[in-house]
Amino acid sequence: MKSIVEQLDPIFKPKSIAVIGASNHRTKWGFRMINRPLRTGYRGAVYPVNRQGEQINHLPSYKSILDIPEAVDLAVITLPAPQIPGVMKECVDKGVKGVVLITAGFAEVGREGKILEDKVVSIARKGGIRFVGPNCMGIWSRAGMLSLSFDKAPLAGPIAFVSQSGTFGVSLSEIAGTKGYGLSKFISIGNQGDLDAADYLEYLASDEETKVLVFYIEGFKDGKRFMNLAREVVKQKPIVIYKAGRTSAGSKATQSHTASLAGSDEIFDAVCRQAGLIRVHETLHAFDVAEVLASQPLPPGRRVAILGSGGQGVVTADACASLGLEVPDLDGDTVRSLMAGLPPHAPRPNNPVDFAGSARTGLEEAAVVEKLLKCDYIDGVISNVPINPAAWSDMFGFSGLPKPLLDLTKIAVEGADYFCSLPAKYGKPVITTRFRRVDHDMVIDILKGAGIPVCDTPEEAARAMHALVQYANIRKKAQSRKAITEGRG
Amino acid sequence: MKSIVEQLDPIFKPKSIAVIGASNHRTKWGFRMINRPLRTGYRGAVYPVNRQGEQINHLPSYKSILDIPEAVDLAVITLPAPQIPGVMKECVDKGVKGVVLITAGFAEVGREGKILEDKVVSIARKGGIRFVGPNCMGIWSRAGMLSLSFDKAPLAGPIAFVSQSGTFGVSLSEIAGTKGYGLSKFISIGNQGDLDAADYLEYLASDEETKVLVFYIEGFKDGKRFMNLAREVVKQKPIVIYKAGRTSAGSKATQSHTASLAGSDEIFDAVCRQAGLIRVHETLHAFDVAEVLASQPLPPGRRVAILGSGGQGVVTADACASLGLEVPDLDGDTVRSLMAGLPPHAPRPNNPVDFAGSARTGLEEAAVVEKLLKCDYIDGVISNVPINPAAWSDMFGFSGLPKPLLDLTKIAVEGADYFCSLPAKYGKPVITTRFRRVDHDMVIDILKGAGIPVCDTPEEAARAMHALVQYANIRKKAQSRKAITEGRG
Repeated sequence: MKSIVEQLDPIFKPKSIAVIGASNHRTKWGFRMINRPLRTGYRGAVYPVNRQGEQINHLPSYKSILDIPEAVDLAVITLPAPQIPGVMKECVDKGVKGVVLITAGFAEVGREGKILEDKVVSIARKGGIRFVGPNCMGIWSRAGMLSLSFDKAPLAGPIAFVSQSGTFGVSLSEIAGTKGYGLSKFISIGNQGDLDAADYLEYLASDEETKVLVFYIEGFKDGKRFMNLAREVVKQKPIVIYKAGRTSAGSKATQSHTASLAGSDEIFDAVCRQAGLIRVHETLHAFDVAEVLASQPLPPGRRVAILGSGGQGVVTADACASLGLEVPDLDGDTVRSLMAGLPPHAPRPNNPVDFAGSARTGLEEAAVVEKLLKCDYIDGVISNVPINPAAWSDMFGFSGLPKPLLDLTKIAVEGADYFCSLPAKYGKPVITTRFRRVDHDMVIDILKGAGIPVCDTPEEAARAMHALVQYANIRKKAQSRKAITEGRG
Repeated sequence: MKSIVEQLDPIFKPKSIAVIGASNHRTKWGFRMINRPLRTGYRGAVYPVNRQGEQINHLPSYKSILDIPEAVDLAVITLPAPQIPGVMKECVDKGVKGVVLITAGFAEVGREGKILEDKVVSIARKGGIRFVGPNCMGIWSRAGMLSLSFDKAPLAGPIAFVSQSGTFGVSLSEIAGTKGYGLSKFISIGNQGDLDAADYLEYLASDEETKVLVFYIEGFKDGKRFMNLAREVVKQKPIVIYKAGRTSAGSKATQSHTASLAGSDEIFDAVCRQAGLIRVHETLHAFDVAEVLASQPLPPGRRVAILGSGGQGVVTADACASLGLEVPDLDGDTVRSLMAGLPPHAPRPNNPVDFAGSARTGLEEAAVVEKLLKCDYIDGVISNVPINPAAWSDMFGFSGLPKPLLDLTKIAVEGADYFCSLPAKYGKPVITTRFRRVDHDMVIDILKGAGIPVCDTPEEAARAMHALVQYANIRKKAQSRKAITEGRG
């Protein structure tokens, strides 16, 4: 029997695709499924299949997939539901390895649809074809440079997003993209007629370009299998989940949307804790925390140091403490060492450390962050984005710096580079929060390029730190389970 | 005795300002306080005051404020703390009406600073001067076109933001600006040596361009007076408050930041409820809800109808229900009326209403929203942003529309205009959520121009609707209190 990688690679890294139901009508899925791959950089062969046999998007088309002279890895099907059993048979005969079945009108519309869906599944299984859908919005695969879901290729990144909602999943991906979050895969799983959330979980576990998995789920097809797999996967990669239908109003809505039974929210919470899933309660938070989980070292504990001007430090401390993180006092030596770098009028540094407007370059701020990371009772740091003196030149004084000419850009780059070197050096996470001058900051680009998270608000930074602490605990628990098992064996 | 308006108008609408401590050094506050008003459109006279008497920013300067031949409404002071008592005396002698005291080094640095601050307050009070600060980041006043806090004038809008944290307050204003929220006033209240949060509350209550008040507070100078005033003000304008220092970690941080004692969070919660303040627990949420409170009619109750594709509707329903809003089932007549506008394959509409990809123009969506608003058991609607067929032309079909030429932009504008007319027509709020194509949507500009809120996520929309319901209840309670009092009288 083929491994899950052998089964799904033809879907996510196809050498060739056929679009069955290809169309020149810009308004139809059959057009989009040809147009999107061509526009977004897919490099394999694209074969339109169309009853009329007309040219599609300047490509020669075929009346049946069986007429294509070359091998076809992936068939994308957009024809109406009643035609799908026949089409699936042709795919089997052609030796197609995988299918993305966009077509709606199956289990989600009722009993007859369910019978039709079962028939299609049975044909595919007998013929050795795995398929995505039906009733889905397709996939995006960075490895395959294949976009069936997006008109523009999304930002490339380490997050695989598996969504039970198609349109909302695409929408959420796009909104996450405006925050700078990149995707390795997007999978609109639809009705999960054949492949289900657990299959994708298993596949993504060994997907090299995926570092974090995000799931939007309304209801599981086989929740037990998913959770058992998840328990193994989280030893290597974090899994973030948003579960829709957690209230009775939402639950009722999932039934008409994907015919999912939402189940008790408390039970789901307990199941997530047991399996080691990181659960979020706002959709966009899933991406906020995934981005940080993908880039930062795991904190040894839950003790956070904060560098933030005035109210920003206060709000960060509040947000951390309300999530159960600790904000410990600094020891005397560290305080004295920090004071040496501050002007005499600055208040005695504590946690949060408040520069009180006296920091002038990111170098000075990075030095503070380094002193905090050195403390063995500090497990991670949340800091404002380090100062870009080139942008801040009219906000802060430079009277102490050599005159007449200051290369402020060079100082900014040095400060940012120093700052970016710290998480790896100390094996502890550093998360930053946007601060002033939000619209033009070279320093932010440097941070993001180096994988330092830049959050919009202190609360977002605290949530991300909390997710890191959660995941560190999940990993520790898994290791101690392993140690106990080995000790017994 | 002068009214609060007479006292504070010279600060927020000054005909002339003097900057005491004016400087040509780009890195100093004395430069910024000259430069910002000039750059951001202040139209009154600007008089630099500078011991050296040198030209500042090409303006003639004066060695003392007493040398200025014309009247001065507002003095902005940036000189070091020890000089302030003398300078304040000169302001009194000059007949200055208001002062913004930027200078730090007063009560926030300890006992000696407090003594110095008291001295300055005493001089100002005897001389009939009210002042902002000390230890503050200045103000922005839309009415006065006066920016002391921002390098660029912020977006103009209906929100007055009063912040006990200077730098963070400015930062938060800028981040709110990137979300499209506009300000009528920004006040960095600093140590509240003279004017305090309650004074600004009283002033803003009658400020015509302010529709909503947002407070970032670490600790009150006179909490009782603030709350008594608030109870009156909320009859006319909503007040949104973020209280910092709600955990012990945050509370400790407020003490070193603004020497504020944060007090018990539970008591504060109860006090807010009593006074009718809308409390938020994330800083940026204050602006999210303020923007909606400023623009939408108040809902008669807490029953929400939702129009949102698939998962978006589910998540909105969940978010509403978890905040205590109701998402009632639709009645048979409404369902039948909605079905008439949907294609035969669409699922039976309920709440949330799911177009299942069948809506093609904003006109069709606006028609659904109107049918929902007509229901006497629906108090408000959350909808996705109506479709812009010009941008969505390859996503949705137009086979039913007249050929060969469709003016899609015209259809988009008609749909958006129809949509925008609905809240006023039915006296119920309509809130939208961004959906797909986030980067180029003319429809979003039309909505925002018409005061229809456009939220980034379903959760943000639900929070905004919840704040409207809260404020509607606050107003009802105030009216019934009034009725009881009058009945007794």
